[in-house]
This record gives sequence, structure tokens and C-alpha cells, in this order.
Amino acid sequence: MMSVIVAEPGLSNVSVAHTEIGDVRGEEGFYQYRQYNAVSLARYRTFEEVWFLFVHGRLPEAYELDRFVNEVRSLRTIGDDLMSVIRVVAATGGGRRPLIGLRTVMSSLAELEGMAPLWDADPDTRVRHALRVCAVTPTILAALHRISNGDEPVPARDDLDTAAHWLHTITGELPTPEHARAVEQYLIATIDHGFNASTFTARVIASTGADLVSAVCGAIGAFSGPLHGGAPDRALDSLDEIALTGGAEAATEWARGQMAAGARIMGFGHAVYRTVDPRSELLRDIANGLGGDTVDLAVEVERAVVSELARSHPDRPLYANVEFYAGVVMDRCGIPRTMFTPTFTVSRVVGWCANILEQAQSRKIIRPRATYVGPEVVELVS
Amino acid sequence: MMSVIVAEPGLSNVSVAHTEIGDVRGEEGFYQYRQYNAVSLARYRTFEEVWFLFVHGRLPEAYELDRFVNEVRSLRTIGDDLMSVIRVVAATGGGRRPLIGLRTVMSSLAELEGMAPLWDADPDTRVRHALRVCAVTPTILAALHRISNGDEPVPARDDLDTAAHWLHTITGELPTPEHARAVEQYLIATIDHGFNASTFTARVIASTGADLVSAVCGAIGAFSGPLHGGAPDRALDSLDEIALTGGAEAATEWARGQMAAGARIMGFGHAVYRTVDPRSELLRDIANGLGGDTVDLAVEVERAVVSELARSHPDRPLYANVEFYAGVVMDRCGIPRTMFTPTFTVSRVVGWCANILEQAQSRKIIRPRATYVGPEVVELVS
Repeated sequence: MMSVIVAEPGLSNVSVAHTEIGDVRGEEGFYQYRQYNAVSLARYRTFEEVWFLFVHGRLPEAYELDRFVNEVRSLRTIGDDLMSVIRVVAATGGGRRPLIGLRTVMSSLAELEGMAPLWDADPDTRVRHALRVCAVTPTILAALHRISNGDEPVPARDDLDTAAHWLHTITGELPTPEHARAVEQYLIATIDHGFNASTFTARVIASTGADLVSAVCGAIGAFSGPLHGGAPDRALDSLDEIALTGGAEAATEWARGQMAAGARIMGFGHAVYRTVDPRSELLRDIANGLGGDTVDLAVEVERAVVSELARSHPDRPLYANVEFYAGVVMDRCGIPRTMFTPTFTVSRVVGWCANILEQAQSRKIIRPRATYVGPEVVELVS
Repeated sequence: MMSVIVAEPGLSNVSVAHTEIGDVRGEEGFYQYRQYNAVSLARYRTFEEVWFLFVHGRLPEAYELDRFVNEVRSLRTIGDDLMSVIRVVAATGGGRRPLIGLRTVMSSLAELEGMAPLWDADPDTRVRHALRVCAVTPTILAALHRISNGDEPVPARDDLDTAAHWLHTITGELPTPEHARAVEQYLIATIDHGFNASTFTARVIASTGADLVSAVCGAIGAFSGPLHGGAPDRALDSLDEIALTGGAEAATEWARGQMAAGARIMGFGHAVYRTVDPRSELLRDIANGLGGDTVDLAVEVERAVVSELARSHPDRPLYANVEFYAGVVMDRCGIPRTMFTPTFTVSRVVGWCANILEQAQSRKIIRPRATYVGPEVVELVS
């Protein structure tokens, strides 16, 4: 009989798979996509280049990038059938919680577009399905957002890349190059991050041989959970609160008050990083590049909160996480707060799909054990 | 730094949680729901009694059962909003793969009926949401099935229990008591079975604090995978093939041919059981009670296949699994083959929900580790 290992709750001490997609080194404050430092990719590359890297395991040559960009631009359009589903979902409330609406629409996609289970699809077909799912995700989210607000969806264009197109389809305006690049860097920095709950969900579902959309729908559900999909809007709400009560000078006072009340401070601390979250450093730089009062306030508040947290938990200092500056950056670029987590989804779906494609190669179903701790078996009185 | 355990692929050697919901003892050919032998429950109790057991951890007293039965009967109806989603899903092909159609409709339910994330709901509310999801699942599946076949949905009745109502809403006829009881026993026997891929998916999603429907939608996706949701229709297809080529006498010949060709024989072998699958014994008894040519053939084929498998794999004998007689029983009770896996879903959703409610108590997100095995980090040329 196989000897059974009892995992820590949350599986934080179990490595569940070999992967070539990326790594997170929590002790060092470092994470990578494939063989590259993820922060360097965000600083120096485009979203489409990094997306190609996730799919193919290497950065594209120029001619490959051209072809890839054209392909994913053409894959973002939605036909009448899909639009009819989007309109029903928006009409029945699916725009109030954008991720839930996205999931309902996405759920119908496999059937509408004849996507076979992973096991029945050859590798090229799987990749095409994955590109379609990733390319259409922002289109669905933006259409749901606009219809729910009483606006018409913005028609898809084929002369903008992912970040600029996303801003365009939300707002109806053409973004400035600075805003498009800031959002692009945010998107690159958030594509993947280890076996977080949504990524792991996607892999468990993919391990059954189900279609790619089934795995993505599961991941969206996990991502919608308050412990996971992030709180960039809540972190920004805190900044508003501090701004109202006196600005930067009030930050220390506010942080002390929160801690005294036992309230969780949104945007600080991370399950894996034991040092500075490299994403928050990148996003602080991006925010500083954009400038503005909220950015200045955020820098002050970060300083105050980190210092107060270090005072109260000297054994385990906590730092700003990816969420803290994410909200500041998105807000500066004109993204409404309800679309912060959807923006995160636009990038993360690329990571989910890479993980699904990798998992689909193993053909081994994920089926762990559990330890029964209930009452002893009793005879049924019949 | 925490020491990391590297799991077997598929996590088959890792116990990922403590549970009071049930246990599967693969070496003994035994499985239990709460503190009772699951097969005894299927032999001597009703589906609603066992459903109550999953939700509340004990069998109901008579007055509690009356109340519970009335409650779940009232929860199976669907309003106009939900029906409009069902019609759109059926019209856009969602009836071809019933589980996918169910998932799309289910995905819209949380929003339509205002189901809050698990964390924001008190325990009573969570239980009510769980009962609603389980009660409405067969209604959605039957409506999708009938609309896709050009029939109108059968209106919900409040004078039939789950199994009889399920048969009624699929076929439009009132089932015989024998058929209703046979299907009821099948349903009871398949509510739960350890941390299989769909149940584990549901728990990972629930660990993020997402709403119950998000966890169920993920589970449905996993269940739709060819390695998981079962092959009762494929096992029955094999029986048809054997019946055509000469009946019981041809069974041994057929089994040898399959093995020589390296084909997987549907309905035999299981990831956990190392001995007889207790569910297949129960279902064989139920099938024998119903009688008929297919049942007699199935008994002969089981005997021939088990004997051939023992000859070819003397070190690891394989037995009929839950799927082998499941198809025979469902077929005898008038369930069309396309509705075999949906019937499995009608019971399994009760198990998923019990697991989701248990997971929701822990408030610890499931986030395992992975081992990076790709190329070493290289400096990005910028």
C-alpha cells in the first residue's frame, strides 16, 4: 500500500507538479515566466511578446511576432450568437459581477465554437482554442460592462494591441500611449504567479481531459473569491478614505487605527513573498511615471503602513503587494473600479491557458486523498 | 523555510484535508457517507434521507424528513428569468453536451438569485443556497434535454421525490415504482466518493470564499472530462456490440479481442478500489431485480471480462466499476443514453455541495507549490 502524506491545510507545503511555465521564489522576492525575470519582461517587452513566450516557451522572432499579433487581433471579434448570449447575460444581471457574467458567456463558448475536449484535440488545435479564449475575454468583459451601463459595445478594431484595445473598448476613447503602456506593463506583470488557487483549479479540471473552456470557467470562479482575485478597488477605497481625513499626514494615524481595530489592511502582505513583492516595486515605478496626487498619497501611505506593520510584527514584516499600486495605476489610466479585477483577468487568462496546455500533456487525473475524521462507522438501523 | 513535499503526479499519495463527509477504503472495497456504509444507505433509505444526512451530518427524524422533503420539492421550480437563459442556451447548442449547457445556466443562477460569496453568507443561508442548487439541477438538465429535442419542458410537480420526478421530467411519463426505486438507489450510491477531481475542484474554488455556484460550475467542468464523469453509455455501447456479434457466448472472445488490440474496456477498473467496487455489486443486484436480456448479457460479460483480465493481469485483478451496471440500470428504467452522465450529476451535486459547505468552514485558501523544471533563468536582452 502506498504511504500517504498528510499535507498542511492549503497545501502550502506540497509541490503538486513539475512545470516549465514559471516560478515564484518567495524568499528572494523574485518571480519568472519561463526562463526570464517577469519584471524585466514587463519593463522591456510587449504583452503580445510575453503571451507568445507563455504559449511557445521562447520569445518570438520579429516575423513570428507580426504573425502572432495579427492572429490574436483577428481572434477578438464576437459573432451574433455570442453577442446574443452576452445580451441575455447582461439583461439578467451578469454585469453586476463582471467575472460571473464572463463565466456564463465563456461557458457557452466551447459549444458555440465546437471546442472539443482537450484529449480529442491535437496540440495545434489546443493552442488555437487557447488564443481564442484569451483574445475574446476582454471583448466579452468590455461588452458586458458597456451594455450593463446602457452603452453599446465598442466594435473591435484590428489596429490596436491588447492593452490599448482594452482601454478603448471600456471607455470608447483612444487611450494615450502612456496610459496604454502603463496598463500593458500591469497586464504583463500579472499573467502568472505560481499555482495560485485559480491556476490550480484550471489544472485539476484540465487533468480530467475536459475542454479548455471548462478549465477556464473553473478558474474564473476561483478568481472571483474574495481571498483570491484581489482587492485593488478596496485598496484604492482606503486611499480615498485617508485623503478625506487629512492626506499623507493622516496615514500613520490611519494605519494605527486599522491595526488597533484588528482590520485587515488591503494591499499588504502575501502568501508567498517573505520580502518585497517585486510586482509592487514595478507598479510603484509605473505609478510614479504617471504622477498625480493619488500616486503621491499612495507612496506616503505605503511608507506609513509598512513602518507600522514592522513595528507591530517585527518577526514578520509585511510589504505592499501587487494590489496596492495596481488600483492606483488603473485609476490613473481611466479604468473604472468595477473593471479592476476584470483587467486582472485579461492577463491572468493567458497564464491559465498556458497551465492548461501544460497539464493536458500529462494525461494523469488529479485525485488526491482525504483523511476521514468523522464518527466511527455505525450499523444502519433498517 | 518550510520543507516542501513533492507529491506523486495526480496527488494520489497526498491527503489534502480532514473531512467528516465520507471515506473510501480502496483496499477493503468499502465506502461510507458520514458514519454509515453507503451501500446500506442505498439499500434501505430514500434519496432525501441521505441528502439530509449529507447536509446535517445525521439521518432525519420523521418530522424533519417531512419538512426537508417539502422544502426541496418547492426548490426545484424555475422562474421566467432562468427559463429564458435555458432557452438561449438550448438554442445556441447547449443541449448537445448537457453538462456544458447545465454549467452555462448554473453560472447565471448566483446572479439571478442573489447568492452572495460563501464568506458573506451565514451558515443557514449557505445551506439554503446548496439545497436550491441541488434541487434545480435536475430541472435544468431535463428542460435542456426536452427543448433540444423539440419538446416542451415538463412542469415541475410537488408530489414526487427526486428520482421519480427526474424520470418524469425526462420522459413526460409517470415512472413505475420499481423504476423510480432503482434510479433512486443508483442516485444514492453515487452522491459522493472521496476527493475525486470534481469534488476536489469544488473545494479548491470554495477555499477562495467564492460563491457556491462558482464551485459547482468548476466541478461540472471537471465532471465533463472523459477521464472523470464516467462512461456508462460507452459501457452499454460495448454490450450492444457483443449482443450483435453473438450474445453471451461471444463475451470471452470479445474481451480477448479488446485486450489483444490494447483497447481500454469501459466499465472495468478503478483508481482507488483494489478489490470489488461495492457500487458495482449493488448495481448488479438492482439490475437483476429489474431483469431482462441486457441484464443477463451484462452478467455474462462481466464474468468473462473479469476472468480474462485476471488471466492477463494476475498481479492486479480488475473488477467491474460503478459504470458497468449503471448504464444497464438506467437503460432499463427508460433513461436515454445522453442522459446517463446527467443522471450521475443529479446525485453528485449533493456531494459537491456538502464538500463546499465543509470547505467553507476552514477559511484557508488552497494554494499548493510547483517545482520549476524549465531552463535556467537567463538575462533578458533588452
